Amino acid sequence: MPTSEQVNTALDTVLVPGIKRSLVKMNLVKDVAVTDGKIDITLANSALNAETQEWLKNRVNKVVLGIDGAKAVNLNFADAKPKELNKVKNVIAIMSGKGGVGKSLVSSLTAIALCRQGYEVGILDADITGPSIPKMFGVSGPPGMSESGMLPVPSHSGIEVMSINLLLQTEDDAIIWRGPLIGQTITQFWEETLWGNLDYLIVDLPPGTSDAPLTLMQQLPVSGIVIVFTPQDLTAMVVRKAVKMARQMKKPILGIVENMSYLYIPETNKKMEIFGKSHAGEMSEFAGAPLLGQFPIDPGLATLCDEGNIERYDSEAYTAFTQNLNSALAKK
Amino acid sequence: MPTSEQVNTALDTVLVPGIKRSLVKMNLVKDVAVTDGKIDITLANSALNAETQEWLKNRVNKVVLGIDGAKAVNLNFADAKPKELNKVKNVIAIMSGKGGVGKSLVSSLTAIALCRQGYEVGILDADITGPSIPKMFGVSGPPGMSESGMLPVPSHSGIEVMSINLLLQTEDDAIIWRGPLIGQTITQFWEETLWGNLDYLIVDLPPGTSDAPLTLMQQLPVSGIVIVFTPQDLTAMVVRKAVKMARQMKKPILGIVENMSYLYIPETNKKMEIFGKSHAGEMSEFAGAPLLGQFPIDPGLATLCDEGNIERYDSEAYTAFTQNLNSALAKK
Repeated sequence: MPTSEQVNTALDTVLVPGIKRSLVKMNLVKDVAVTDGKIDITLANSALNAETQEWLKNRVNKVVLGIDGAKAVNLNFADAKPKELNKVKNVIAIMSGKGGVGKSLVSSLTAIALCRQGYEVGILDADITGPSIPKMFGVSGPPGMSESGMLPVPSHSGIEVMSINLLLQTEDDAIIWRGPLIGQTITQFWEETLWGNLDYLIVDLPPGTSDAPLTLMQQLPVSGIVIVFTPQDLTAMVVRKAVKMARQMKKPILGIVENMSYLYIPETNKKMEIFGKSHAGEMSEFAGAPLLGQFPIDPGLATLCDEGNIERYDSEAYTAFTQNLNSALAKK
Repeated sequence: MPTSEQVNTALDTVLVPGIKRSLVKMNLVKDVAVTDGKIDITLANSALNAETQEWLKNRVNKVVLGIDGAKAVNLNFADAKPKELNKVKNVIAIMSGKGGVGKSLVSSLTAIALCRQGYEVGILDADITGPSIPKMFGVSGPPGMSESGMLPVPSHSGIEVMSINLLLQTEDDAIIWRGPLIGQTITQFWEETLWGNLDYLIVDLPPGTSDAPLTLMQQLPVSGIVIVFTPQDLTAMVVRKAVKMARQMKKPILGIVENMSYLYIPETNKKMEIFGKSHAGEMSEFAGAPLLGQFPIDPGLATLCDEGNIERYDSEAYTAFTQNLNSALAKK
């Protein structure tokens, strides 16, 4: 006779159409009961449209009836909202008062570093008016959805992505909204996206200290903030505002990352500090948090981002960043 | 006997304390009447505190009594709000969907180019959560103010500046406000700052297409928009959002500016396109507006900005930009 455990193992092989994760990983299995080889299964219907439900029904039937001794399968769908199903262990927000310093880059590299170590990772792109994440990962919409919610879109390596740009007809359409709507959208991305079980959700914030960071810090269980800056004095001043905001909102700063630290010139074999001397030491002290990494300006990385292939990136700087990130997370 | 004209000429030599412009340029002279050598003057009291009014009274007395045949001066102050006095001929907004592309830099360079040609110029720093203008110009607050309004702070070369950072106790204090407050602050900077007579007011917008640009386009008489971008594909996509917003709000795009186009390496005498190939041609076509300039990444310029000496900048790229800007403004 089949056991519930066997059924669950079977269900863990059924991937939800459109995303690369199983019914179990998405927390969609609500109930499994086995009586004399007859198997009753209840799945949540969150974010699953009728077609997807039908597909899953057939697939589950096939897989479960393949278990030795399974006689019949009775599959039902029950109403559930994504926020009842989501189990996100850590929310890490990537922030910087200043625009264009590389928040999206650091968000992506953080997610990729964790994904490469086997963690289940998602990225919530909270930069509603200037979203960059889908393009960097080469993913596009529309995502699967039903009345009850949306499914994220997986990257090549299985990082779950949600971004306003996945919902737009044309990627360069403008979102001309006032702040409250921006805040609402971030809340929706958090509550109405079926993230399922995640070890880490990385949130890519827009520049500034206004609606998006405020909503995030007030409404999401942020467990750590990573602050991004560049060597320019001007940037340092604006970034200190972000540090002060994090402090005022009583959210722990996990670490800081300096981007565009230097440019390597192959012809001369020299590093050129084109945005000035590093402020990493002072910034680390000001933030009371460790320096997680220093990334150079890297034309090769810029190309990978433009091509949607950021997941192929590797460098010494990245290896060092990954190690420091792990240490910082371990200390939390 | 003195004429009203002579009195006005005399008043044009009286500079308002704290700013480098005269009572006449600030539009503070409400009325001048001359009867048998007796001179009645009414000044608006906008943004002038009691001490400043006293200082002006003494100074005006001295200057006007110096006119041949002047017997007595009777000076009164009348209530007036800055917005009743401001006469701003052109409002030019510097915009970009993307952060960190150099909006503040282009705002400053636009203001300086016009100022060098003898125009009266002001800069309204609408980047409330990430203001950069005061630091680039080396100006600090607090500005002069009274119950009726605020005076801008002049730069070394006499450009009038208003920025939230002039009003903060510490330049790195965070402004943690939701969108509506941000919009209100921009409206206040427009209505409650005594700009006086200006040929050009340059508005430095924050990244994105949310509250700040919306408020500006809805409430200020914007006569032209300059769009700033960099060669990265990713930037181009977000910048196209700004172009679409300008179009939806029916505001004319004066021109576009590409920043960080290349880096000149002295050792090899080569230009390195570190953020990829230029998209200037496509962007110009997409925006339906001329390319006003292409600025390289210039470590020297970055240093001038960090030191508050941006007004000392000069380069071939800047000369070309100034010429193109003039042509674009002439065609308006």
